[in-house]
Amino acid sequence: MDETDLKILQAIASLGTHSPSKVQEETGIPESTIYYRLDKLREKGIIKNDLYDLDNEKLGLGITIIVEVVATYKEGYHHKIGEKLSEIEGVSQVHFTMGERDFVVIAHVPDRKGVERLISDFESVDEVQRTQSKYTITTIKNEPRVVNTYSIESLISTLSTNNELED
Amino acid sequence: MDETDLKILQAIASLGTHSPSKVQEETGIPESTIYYRLDKLREKGIIKNDLYDLDNEKLGLGITIIVEVVATYKEGYHHKIGEKLSEIEGVSQVHFTMGERDFVVIAHVPDRKGVERLISDFESVDEVQRTQSKYTITTIKNEPRVVNTYSIESLISTLSTNNELED
Amino acid sequence: MDETDLKILQAIASLGTHSPSKVQEETGIPESTIYYRLDKLREKGIIKNDLYDLDNEKLGLGITIIVEVVATYKEGYHHKIGEKLSEIEGVSQVHFTMGERDFVVIAHVPDRKGVERLISDFESVDEVQRTQSKYTITTIKNEPRVVNTYSIESLISTLSTNNELED
Amino acid sequence: MDETDLKILQAIASLGTHSPSKVQEETGIPESTIYYRLDKLREKGIIKNDLYDLDNEKLGLGITIIVEVVATYKEGYHHKIGEKLSEIEGVSQVHFTMGERDFVVIAHVPDRKGVERLISDFESVDEVQRTQSKYTITTIKNEPRVVNTYSIESLISTLSTNNELED
Amino acid sequence: MDETDLKILQAIASLGTHSPSKVQEETGIPESTIYYRLDKLREKGIIKNDLYDLDNEKLGLGITIIVEVVATYKEGYHHKIGEKLSEIEGVSQVHFTMGERDFVVIAHVPDRKGVERLISDFESVDEVQRTQSKYTITTIKNEPRVVNTYSIESLISTLSTNNELED
Amino acid sequence: MDETDLKILQAIASLGTHSPSKVQEETGIPESTIYYRLDKLREKGIIKNDLYDLDNEKLGLGITIIVEVVATYKEGYHHKIGEKLSEIEGVSQVHFTMGERDFVVIAHVPDRKGVERLISDFESVDEVQRTQSKYTITTIKNEPRVVNTYSIESLISTLSTNNELED
Amino acid sequence: MDETDLKILQAIASLGTHSPSKVQEETGIPESTIYYRLDKLREKGIIKNDLYDLDNEKLGLGITIIVEVVATYKEGYHHKIGEKLSEIEGVSQVHFTMGERDFVVIAHVPDRKGVERLISDFESVDEVQRTQSKYTITTIKNEPRVVNTYSIESLISTLSTNNELED
Amino acid sequence: MDETDLKILQAIASLGTHSPSKVQEETGIPESTIYYRLDKLREKGIIKNDLYDLDNEKLGLGITIIVEVVATYKEGYHHKIGEKLSEIEGVSQVHFTMGERDFVVIAHVPDRKGVERLISDFESVDEVQRTQSKYTITTIKNEPRVVNTYSIESLISTLSTNNELED
Repeated sequence: MDETDLKILQAIASLGTHSPSKVQEETGIPESTIYYRLDKLREKGIIKNDLYDLDNEKLGLGITIIVEVVATYKEGYHHKIGEKLSEIEGVSQVHFTMGERDFVVIAHVPDRKGVERLISDFESVDEVQRTQSKYTITTIKNEPRVVNTYSIESLISTLSTNNELED
Repeated sequence: MDETDLKILQAIASLGTHSPSKVQEETGIPESTIYYRLDKLREKGIIKNDLYDLDNEKLGLGITIIVEVVATYKEGYHHKIGEKLSEIEGVSQVHFTMGERDFVVIAHVPDRKGVERLISDFESVDEVQRTQSKYTITTIKNEPRVVNTYSIESLISTLSTNNELED
Repeated sequence: MDETDLKILQAIASLGTHSPSKVQEETGIPESTIYYRLDKLREKGIIKNDLYDLDNEKLGLGITIIVEVVATYKEGYHHKIGEKLSEIEGVSQVHFTMGERDFVVIAHVPDRKGVERLISDFESVDEVQRTQSKYTITTIKNEPRVVNTYSIESLISTLSTNNELED
Repeated sequence: MDETDLKILQAIASLGTHSPSKVQEETGIPESTIYYRLDKLREKGIIKNDLYDLDNEKLGLGITIIVEVVATYKEGYHHKIGEKLSEIEGVSQVHFTMGERDFVVIAHVPDRKGVERLISDFESVDEVQRTQSKYTITTIKNEPRVVNTYSIESLISTLSTNNELED
Repeated sequence: MDETDLKILQAIASLGTHSPSKVQEETGIPESTIYYRLDKLREKGIIKNDLYDLDNEKLGLGITIIVEVVATYKEGYHHKIGEKLSEIEGVSQVHFTMGERDFVVIAHVPDRKGVERLISDFESVDEVQRTQSKYTITTIKNEPRVVNTYSIESLISTLSTNNELED
Repeated sequence: MDETDLKILQAIASLGTHSPSKVQEETGIPESTIYYRLDKLREKGIIKNDLYDLDNEKLGLGITIIVEVVATYKEGYHHKIGEKLSEIEGVSQVHFTMGERDFVVIAHVPDRKGVERLISDFESVDEVQRTQSKYTITTIKNEPRVVNTYSIESLISTLSTNNELED
Repeated sequence: MDETDLKILQAIASLGTHSPSKVQEETGIPESTIYYRLDKLREKGIIKNDLYDLDNEKLGLGITIIVEVVATYKEGYHHKIGEKLSEIEGVSQVHFTMGERDFVVIAHVPDRKGVERLISDFESVDEVQRTQSKYTITTIKNEPRVVNTYSIESLISTLSTNNELED
Repeated sequence: MDETDLKILQAIASLGTHSPSKVQEETGIPESTIYYRLDKLREKGIIKNDLYDLDNEKLGLGITIIVEVVATYKEGYHHKIGEKLSEIEGVSQVHFTMGERDFVVIAHVPDRKGVERLISDFESVDEVQRTQSKYTITTIKNEPRVVNTYSIESLISTLSTNNELED
């Protein structure tokens, strides 16, 4: 895996499409290279399926850290701080929650140095008062499409009570 | 949105492909219907992009709950319990972590009744001793592809130290 | 305040009406006595207004205790245990909540012996594992009708988004 | 339910009476309208009884939030801060307690946006350092008149020891 | 019990003697009155024994509060703050401890208003950041002379290992 | 300090009197020895005053431990368990409290071995589930007579509101 | 580094000597090999000094985990459980402490799989009820000889008060 | 044990060698004295083995304290603060960890006064916000060489997966 591979994968993720022409437009990498590289990445299992879900472990970002953040308590602060947390490298989820701490953040890093870098990045956000981070020993499930976590019957009965099913 | 839509979305998620022929094979729904329905779902914004990422809110599953689970302390228990937690409807992520509690679980439900059903489902897992659940007020970031959370420079320097970049 | 007063007040609270004829039917106390007693209770301030809101302090139940309860973790347990907690004398509110503990209970007792009796009653509920109780130094607000905690503008805009305002 | 209904309900709650003449005086709504509207609200179950207890769920304020507040630690602060918390829309109870946190507050909101608004309002109180809020899954008991939570025997024996029973 | 009684009891406690002549010297109350009053206080059980241990309940100071205090973290602060805490009315013990909080304080107050006064007094100490107070439901043991909590055998073997027994 | 000294001190504490004749009756030690020994103990400062308050440090019991105890949650358990805790050697105070843990216990031991013995004794009480113990670095105040912690003015105004001052 | 190196290092650590003859006796490895290997290990920095302190990172055991353990609460249990914890591979320190949890354990593992193995080993100790483990981001100091953490002046004054300095 | 002994032990620890000539160079103490003193220290068991591991208890530093530190939350702060903590007398380990608190520190002191001095030293570090310290009742294991905590088989299989075994 080299810079070209990474650029292609990022372009797909940020564009929300795997169309080679659009990826070429974004990255300047020739379509033929894109085709070739994607095939290789699929073979290696880094790209897991046709929906371009990725394997973090094979990507070299196999350590998952869950960080709970306590932040400065000011009016309207949570959106602004949430944005700052979102910009930290490796952070894929930022939830503003009710409870003891303000934010639950999920991040992915390659190794112990990555953990240290991540913690330092949280430290550098002024409004962050305290963090509590947890090292994930193993991730047992990570299903990106929630619709796949319900049976069809549950989905129908659930959503119909909410009047969301009429076309 | 009706049963047909939901069946199509589930098939795509579980197959890992949006190929209409494969979705037809899985669901028995004619390809032409599949094409038509997917167009509609895209128009409504339920399908967010060409990678078939979905909008939970529009899907009617807009409430995110983060549950921390303390489970029975027995040898080799965590994989088995992790699997049980994974099968609860609405659960999209199950992390086994170091720290005060054993698992961090993320789930999505449609409404307050869904919250109550979810908590009851956790209660019904024998090995679960205690849960602490947090209501997510708002999700500020949810990026399914971690590669998109790093700059290209960071990715390259990070991964090269781990000797993962050689092709 | 004597047994007759207390019977009248309880009948009003449980019947949901202050109609002397219904209170007489329930208690056997003659209507004329009821009229007379209610006048006296109003004069003393025990009955605070025409809606028959009562003054706990003057009633001799001036100590408010907030109890958080951790209960046995079993399928479908929370309704059953919630009922048991509801039957403890002095308990006016039982909330089943998300969070570290299962129930938040609010109770009112006359004095320190009442606190001890209350704690003993919680102990005697089999499914209760732990309680954490807080002594309320002072209650700054206790408004029984929530509609009174919003401005009219907020209520209208709030409820209209929820499509609850159409007649 | 419309603005007129809400004005009537608020007037009753704040005046502490359901006398149509007094409600007319307060609101300017004609008595006949008041009679008619109250009948309708009773039919719908929004007004639950002759004591004008209301059904929060039917009123569209069905989500109960319990907020524990840690506030600035200054001399004589708790009354002042308690007042500020009392003025936040949706807050029906404010208790100043002994224990880990300073205040226990109970509030009612219509939906998830209401939760976010509520948390923001707490953030905007300068003296508030931290809040921990709990989402109430279900309220099993909510008895506004404490006298109704004791047996008549308990009340008599309890109150007589406190010398509160002499007329 | 009146002012004279209280002055006598305080003089005894602060002088460390019950000698009537010394108490007279301290208070100006005639010895004969002192004799008479002490007899009465002994009869009522307020003075429990010849060592002038007192019964807090009968003295009207029957509520025991245990307060854990977190204080400003500065060099050499704990002695200074400990002194300030010691001067708060009703405080009988101040321990500086290892652990989550800095001080454990035990205080005695007459009633709920006394609790509120006590908490206010802690609030007024600048260096105090947080307090957590516990209401004592009942005190099962309170032995002022530690020597009485050991068997004579334990005392001898214990103290001899510490070389404290040689005369 | 030898066995005779300790026997005398214990007899005084348990009898509640320093009368040599009663101490002789209890211990069999001749009155003349008792006089002599008490003089010596006073000279050494082990007996601090005429009220026979003792100096724990000089007595060789200078380490104070504060133990918070969580016990089995059963009906009427707290008195029974409180008694068991009271019988552990070195325990001078047992408070049953509202809050996170059930009992606050204060104990005194001579050294690190004493700490280990104390913890073992708590372990051996069946109903004890968990203890959390704190090592007291220094005790800043320990006033056995609460009356001495109030000004005379406070005592009078405090107690008069509670109608305890009439003779 | 191979099996021979590891055998030599273990023999030195368990024998408490680096005498080649004793190491040969223990391991059967010829003295000349021992000399040669130790030279190499010193060159690589795995052996840090003449006292045979080792570099965990270079040894491939660079991840330090601090585990706090709550164990079954039974009489005399702590020595027995402490021994069991001591036998878990990678555990270098076991402290039985006062406080919220019973044991503080320090362990060293090579990688994430090692963390999972370690946690599983704790799970398999029957008496262990709960663990809370912390991932060490970096170890800033690790001085095996405590004497080196004091100035000579402090040591002398400290130890002389404890009467430990007389030869 | 006197100043000379302590100087020799410190020199060995800081130089990382027990070579008498180097120790003489560092301390100015004649080699013959060094030989003699080390023999005596070995006889007394203060020096435990040929690797010059020391017995803290016999050295008069038998009380182990584990301190968890919360520090000011600023960018890049942890290395700087970690260094400051490392310089406190008696501190032998400083770990910067993920979790509720920032640092886990292990220190050794001679007695209760040493505990108080240690806590004061932590207080005097500006960036330290809070400490929580635990008194170690007994240390069950303290193995300075981690290689000795694994079986040879585990070491080999562990390290070989990490490709650390090739020479």
